Amino acid sequence: MINYPTKKKTNTSMNITTKSNQRGMGLEKDINDSNTFYRECNRALIYKKPTPVQVVRVDYPKRSSAKIVEGYYKTPSTTDYNGLYRGKYIDFEAKETKSKASFTFKNIHEHQIQHLEDVQKHGGIAFLIIRFTLYNETYLIDASHIIDAYKDQKQKSIRYEKVKECGCLICESFTPRLKYLDIVDNLYFKEDSYGF
Amino acid sequence: MINYPTKKKTNTSMNITTKSNQRGMGLEKDINDSNTFYRECNRALIYKKPTPVQVVRVDYPKRSSAKIVEGYYKTPSTTDYNGLYRGKYIDFEAKETKSKASFTFKNIHEHQIQHLEDVQKHGGIAFLIIRFTLYNETYLIDASHIIDAYKDQKQKSIRYEKVKECGCLICESFTPRLKYLDIVDNLYFKEDSYGF
Repeated sequence: MINYPTKKKTNTSMNITTKSNQRGMGLEKDINDSNTFYRECNRALIYKKPTPVQVVRVDYPKRSSAKIVEGYYKTPSTTDYNGLYRGKYIDFEAKETKSKASFTFKNIHEHQIQHLEDVQKHGGIAFLIIRFTLYNETYLIDASHIIDAYKDQKQKSIRYEKVKECGCLICESFTPRLKYLDIVDNLYFKEDSYGF
Repeated sequence: MINYPTKKKTNTSMNITTKSNQRGMGLEKDINDSNTFYRECNRALIYKKPTPVQVVRVDYPKRSSAKIVEGYYKTPSTTDYNGLYRGKYIDFEAKETKSKASFTFKNIHEHQIQHLEDVQKHGGIAFLIIRFTLYNETYLIDASHIIDAYKDQKQKSIRYEKVKECGCLICESFTPRLKYLDIVDNLYFKEDSYGF
């Protein structure tokens, strides 16, 4: 079939697969790939939670299939990732920033901070993974540093130097892409003997 | 504006809010309400994971808002619920059945069984909550009973009597609607002294 220049556009929608394609996809993909690798070698059981969608209207073109024709992205109630590692509950949020100077708290919701604090209170491991894309550096930082800075009314961000000082640089490799569980071993399982 | 009888239908879609409205909503709502109560009284941090949606097409009616105009429900990779209780990772699936005789394994995906088995291997707590709606009874049953029955090629379901024998009946109340954490205390924290 030849598409003549006069052919009318039948659809003006943009084709994208997920909202996450728009921003932060590099880090998200790296973490997802790392989690798949960690699951496949039975080291940990960590998943990204699905992006919550408020479904408003559904069509049933066939009896067996449902097609969502109106839906909206909702603000997540918690963080993006959680799971199980060495018998412990793990919970974290991952964010990228293009800033060279700092990670701004605009990137993170207040209830996500509250959730990370709750995780720590209930005996779980909570942290953030922050990537400074312009340095190509990815840090794992315990949630307490971010919670403290967030609660300080004067601060609206955490400086790059502070993340570097309080966090740990995550080594990159082919598999896993981000060796972040090595940092978790060092930070949270120091007294144990490592079986890896 | 008067809608004359001759007015054409402009939209034949059905209005529903979520797929879960169609089935199992009673149990899902009871568990969600119970989890909200448990979170509010700081007893546990357990959430339902969002239903995964494969977003195919998004419109941007306004610059700031994204409207999903084509999406499909995906099969969940894991179970519906997970979280943190008394320092332990908790993971479970909840299902209703209208059968009086048994809970059929058609209701549960193979990779969900695999996931529950993985949770136990990694030191987490894994179970199912099964409601027999015609008896109005809701049971908590450790995942191992379901995994064993599922792996037995001859079995395609687990009998009601077996669930009654191996599981524990969950007491209902006003708040929480389902006191399922009392069962978790008895099943998984027997040797500890209870602080509740």
